[in-house]
Amino acid sequence: MPDSWTLDDDRCFSPDPRVRARARELYQPLRQLPIVAPHGHVPPALLADPDARFGDPAELFIKPDHYVFRMLYSQGVPMEDLGVPTRDGTSKGRDPREIWRTFCEYFELFQGTPTGLWLKAELIELFGVTARPSAETADALYDQLQAALDSDAFRPRALFARFGIEVLTTTDAATDDLSEHAQIQAAGLPVRPTFRPDALLRVADAEWHSNLVLLESRCGREIDDLSGFREALRGRRDAFRERGAAASDHGVESPFIAPLDQADACAIFARALAGSASTEEAAAFHAHMLFELAGMAVDDGLVMQLHVGSFRDHHRRIFERFGRDRGADVPVAVDWTRGLHALLNAYGHDPRFRLIPFTLDESTYARELAPLAGHYPALRLGGPWWFFDSVLGFDRYLDRTVETAGVYNLAGFNDDTRAFASIPTRHDVWRRSVANWLAGSVERGLIDADQAPEMASWLAYGAANDAYRLS
Amino acid sequence: MPDSWTLDDDRCFSPDPRVRARARELYQPLRQLPIVAPHGHVPPALLADPDARFGDPAELFIKPDHYVFRMLYSQGVPMEDLGVPTRDGTSKGRDPREIWRTFCEYFELFQGTPTGLWLKAELIELFGVTARPSAETADALYDQLQAALDSDAFRPRALFARFGIEVLTTTDAATDDLSEHAQIQAAGLPVRPTFRPDALLRVADAEWHSNLVLLESRCGREIDDLSGFREALRGRRDAFRERGAAASDHGVESPFIAPLDQADACAIFARALAGSASTEEAAAFHAHMLFELAGMAVDDGLVMQLHVGSFRDHHRRIFERFGRDRGADVPVAVDWTRGLHALLNAYGHDPRFRLIPFTLDESTYARELAPLAGHYPALRLGGPWWFFDSVLGFDRYLDRTVETAGVYNLAGFNDDTRAFASIPTRHDVWRRSVANWLAGSVERGLIDADQAPEMASWLAYGAANDAYRLS
Amino acid sequence: MPDSWTLDDDRCFSPDPRVRARARELYQPLRQLPIVAPHGHVPPALLADPDARFGDPAELFIKPDHYVFRMLYSQGVPMEDLGVPTRDGTSKGRDPREIWRTFCEYFELFQGTPTGLWLKAELIELFGVTARPSAETADALYDQLQAALDSDAFRPRALFARFGIEVLTTTDAATDDLSEHAQIQAAGLPVRPTFRPDALLRVADAEWHSNLVLLESRCGREIDDLSGFREALRGRRDAFRERGAAASDHGVESPFIAPLDQADACAIFARALAGSASTEEAAAFHAHMLFELAGMAVDDGLVMQLHVGSFRDHHRRIFERFGRDRGADVPVAVDWTRGLHALLNAYGHDPRFRLIPFTLDESTYARELAPLAGHYPALRLGGPWWFFDSVLGFDRYLDRTVETAGVYNLAGFNDDTRAFASIPTRHDVWRRSVANWLAGSVERGLIDADQAPEMASWLAYGAANDAYRLS
Repeated sequence: MPDSWTLDDDRCFSPDPRVRARARELYQPLRQLPIVAPHGHVPPALLADPDARFGDPAELFIKPDHYVFRMLYSQGVPMEDLGVPTRDGTSKGRDPREIWRTFCEYFELFQGTPTGLWLKAELIELFGVTARPSAETADALYDQLQAALDSDAFRPRALFARFGIEVLTTTDAATDDLSEHAQIQAAGLPVRPTFRPDALLRVADAEWHSNLVLLESRCGREIDDLSGFREALRGRRDAFRERGAAASDHGVESPFIAPLDQADACAIFARALAGSASTEEAAAFHAHMLFELAGMAVDDGLVMQLHVGSFRDHHRRIFERFGRDRGADVPVAVDWTRGLHALLNAYGHDPRFRLIPFTLDESTYARELAPLAGHYPALRLGGPWWFFDSVLGFDRYLDRTVETAGVYNLAGFNDDTRAFASIPTRHDVWRRSVANWLAGSVERGLIDADQAPEMASWLAYGAANDAYRLS
Repeated sequence: MPDSWTLDDDRCFSPDPRVRARARELYQPLRQLPIVAPHGHVPPALLADPDARFGDPAELFIKPDHYVFRMLYSQGVPMEDLGVPTRDGTSKGRDPREIWRTFCEYFELFQGTPTGLWLKAELIELFGVTARPSAETADALYDQLQAALDSDAFRPRALFARFGIEVLTTTDAATDDLSEHAQIQAAGLPVRPTFRPDALLRVADAEWHSNLVLLESRCGREIDDLSGFREALRGRRDAFRERGAAASDHGVESPFIAPLDQADACAIFARALAGSASTEEAAAFHAHMLFELAGMAVDDGLVMQLHVGSFRDHHRRIFERFGRDRGADVPVAVDWTRGLHALLNAYGHDPRFRLIPFTLDESTYARELAPLAGHYPALRLGGPWWFFDSVLGFDRYLDRTVETAGVYNLAGFNDDTRAFASIPTRHDVWRRSVANWLAGSVERGLIDADQAPEMASWLAYGAANDAYRLS
Repeated sequence: MPDSWTLDDDRCFSPDPRVRARARELYQPLRQLPIVAPHGHVPPALLADPDARFGDPAELFIKPDHYVFRMLYSQGVPMEDLGVPTRDGTSKGRDPREIWRTFCEYFELFQGTPTGLWLKAELIELFGVTARPSAETADALYDQLQAALDSDAFRPRALFARFGIEVLTTTDAATDDLSEHAQIQAAGLPVRPTFRPDALLRVADAEWHSNLVLLESRCGREIDDLSGFREALRGRRDAFRERGAAASDHGVESPFIAPLDQADACAIFARALAGSASTEEAAAFHAHMLFELAGMAVDDGLVMQLHVGSFRDHHRRIFERFGRDRGADVPVAVDWTRGLHALLNAYGHDPRFRLIPFTLDESTYARELAPLAGHYPALRLGGPWWFFDSVLGFDRYLDRTVETAGVYNLAGFNDDTRAFASIPTRHDVWRRSVANWLAGSVERGLIDADQAPEMASWLAYGAANDAYRLS
């Protein structure tokens, strides 16, 4: 254990002296840029209430962050011990200090991971911590963090201001009433919702009917056919746009998006209402509705995000006990080229349409996504997602996309995070990586030195604004 | 904008001083080597007519190069504005200076791309340009380039001599009469045709019948059954070989090559003649014919090239308006291991057979192609193709194939280009990358220093000659 | 040819001075660590007989090593010329000196390959060779090696002691009587068998019935239904455990493992006994039995290894003439996420279960295996296998797994080798690569410097012990 635990000023930069020197130079102006966060999962409740607080260190760092607790779980720590809420409420009441101790005891698991890098930066930069979490330091750290969290400076809204956020985007169920966004906007914070209708499109799921009922209550009338459903979705899109939404978001395991005959689509919807749609029908209907939603996007200008290729809730035991988004989602291979064929043929040339795909299958970066983005005007390639929101993930992404698509067909970075306090460091790691990658390319004679600063600024800031049409 | 725009002498080399010094040393002798270009798409008409000229900068750099115009199209520039010919002729007459201005205005799109690297080297080394293309410099550059193109030194045949080309290979329809090659050879230029029967093997395509009629006229008799078709193909192979062809070339989306029962193959051919073959039958027949063509290759010694995994004309709107090869082809995943099973079991051990596969699915380099090339004597692994004809593409290719297949199972480099003026720089980038990769391996203690020069020369020159049996 | 042929002390380390210096520092303590070899293919006969010897250089380096002879075969050298035994015995009697000469003549093929690195280290470190193999040096080298092999110091048991092996694990047919292991253990050598029932699980293979007869003779009673088969397998597992086995091993082309209804499983087994099971039934039964074996592993604690994704005996001509494991196995793409779904849902959370998957599809490292290993407690991710047991293979493995799974969900290294003399250098290359990778991560600010030594020791030594529950 070193006397003190410090951040390397040159972290994420190549050890090569020439590359490092140029990376530093390219990075300096990026530090000053405000944060544009066009996609993420910060709960709007955090910002709606001016007096909201993070209760304790476990609530800030552990309980809501599946990146954190899945790693401890993989080494045998029960998720109940980490305070992850169970569906039946039996894990409630776990002492946050105990949770924090367990986390500290296992902190070495995060060495070499992006989570480890983020946690280190948050603890040191945000909280002034000087000792690495461990069994020995756990209690003192807990006290230090708790004292900070009890102060006004660590209220979410105070942090929001401190972080220099130009725009923060949340992800919201299509049935959300957006009342929290109304409160946030009334307070003048630049926060936008995102229209996410996934739950309404999975018509064979157990929860579908209750979501449909919610949709009916939002739009104030019964939905008894596909036409009504479609109108209700349009209505919600409008409501989201009125609240500042710039984009929709769609999570699917497969990218196959293709229209059905209208008669078939209507028939499946009718069977879904009757509770008798098969799994195959539901999948075809989902693919059809995504096609229809792209058509709506052409009309209303919402940017369409596609997050594709996660086998959700792979571990059913975890899903049954804890619910969704508990670190048990695992990627699968994706066929973007054939999957997006119908959609891109319909709308890929249309300047009103904007599609941003995100992949968990890195083999598609160079093989499929960069060639698609390097042709179709409507496409901007989403940044490295989830497991690849990492230094080496960024390297691979830039290595595999820029040669074919250039930097101006990329959508920049989004932090995609539920962990509010990690927003600045996630953007910082991207910015450092971008600076380093460009520095390496310049030093290798592959990019003109005088063009690199503009490219760096684009990737760090401009690309997200432009891709999401935020400014 | 810098005062002058210059090429880095050490471009493509690692910034590491030791690696760079060794890369320079390994690269020097490679510069002197003549160019062996065993696969490409230069139109023979360019060289058949001793007085042929590139009319203007747009004709040289933009109109024929889908690498260039697809990038501008991806950012919203209509392809008509770039002079890309439409099928109906409506884009004709676009002022070449206007095209050039548009190109210059968007030149920054190519930063970090191989096209950008090639264009820079061509402009500076070939034309002596000293200012980067931009809206400001466009007109002066146009004048400078046009003056050069008007001079005798820039006639295609003069450039051919200047480029130090030992052999240039074109790609020609099986039905081509090779009259242009006759003219070129009469002039003593070392140019060879390549036998490409793709259009004759897609028996369900709209153009198949007209291609068959052309084949009949070439061989002087009617083709009314598979046996006649087969003999006609053999005849064309012989005609190509007489004109110096060393290889055939075959472009397919899938690598599954397998023989049908002769009776089935004959029946499908009969249905194709009658215009009633289904898509599935046509695909099976194509796979069958490739198997038969491999058998012919065993007999006549033509090297068989397979370019696999491009979903051609993904964007139908572009295909319908502009035709094929317009930058809208997108790769798909490929299963080489199972796909080539039948073919390699039949001929993979035969010293008379030579197969050179090219992939757009880099995940198959280490997983499938290097293990296949490291076993089957008939296989030589084709160099990085298309999107991967790039500095980072070369790194990945060498990183993923040499450890398993060694360098002597690789087929070296081909430029695969339609852009005649880019030939020297494409070979130069490969040679620099090879020198750099070997230098890194030597400095890492993975290759004996005294063996590296021979390996460099093999990869830059000898491998292509040997793989295509050119000398 | 240099005057002398020497090993670079810094081989496998980055040329960057800072990374190299730190890599050296991290590597030093790793050199002293004993070798833990939890998976490999050394024939126990080598160690069972105290007087066993390697007869000649060809027997040591060439005949048993498909990494070696497949490379020469790929360049046209008949495998008969290399003394690879044919099924019909016709290749016997080939003069080992002639074999050695052929090998030396082609030695340059191995430049840049892991086999080349291993051979170099073995020849120089183990045998004190100072000249690179070549046509010129072949005879002198043969004499030098033969003299060494004739000495007592080069008996397998003597080498075993010299290599500093803490534990060596072999791979043994489930029907093996383990008598050689009894002899080895009587001599006090730390050698363990591994239970490999593959041949008993391929119920449609020609050899299945003879293997079943062998199983019956081992367990002393007839097997006439699935229940008896299951009990016989359990009995063999127990026998292996009594001889020190820590693990089972299973080689399959596909990772789909899923239970059948018991009635269906019984029916297929009955048809297999009658010789009438179809290929599809056999595959389903194999998948079922792997599920059952996982259940047994939960009970008896044998660690379950899965080697997935090799298309075995791709070249039938080689298989028919020479048999299995002759360098003609070629990887295919693998879908781990869906393939292991049923198995991991049944046992992935169980602390008694331990699963170690190995892949030949590197695209699954980051996409599937690291996310699975970073969640399921039962999983430890197997080290880089076969073609990826290489310096660049190690880099890619660590780059793609650690960010998501951390180092503590990795199973460390195994040499997987049939080539006994290559064991120390294979482990050494891993250790050097680990030191180098960690050094790079520290210098890039991604791993705390003071944590790196423990991580290095874990990856070099502790991880294998822990994953296989060896200590």
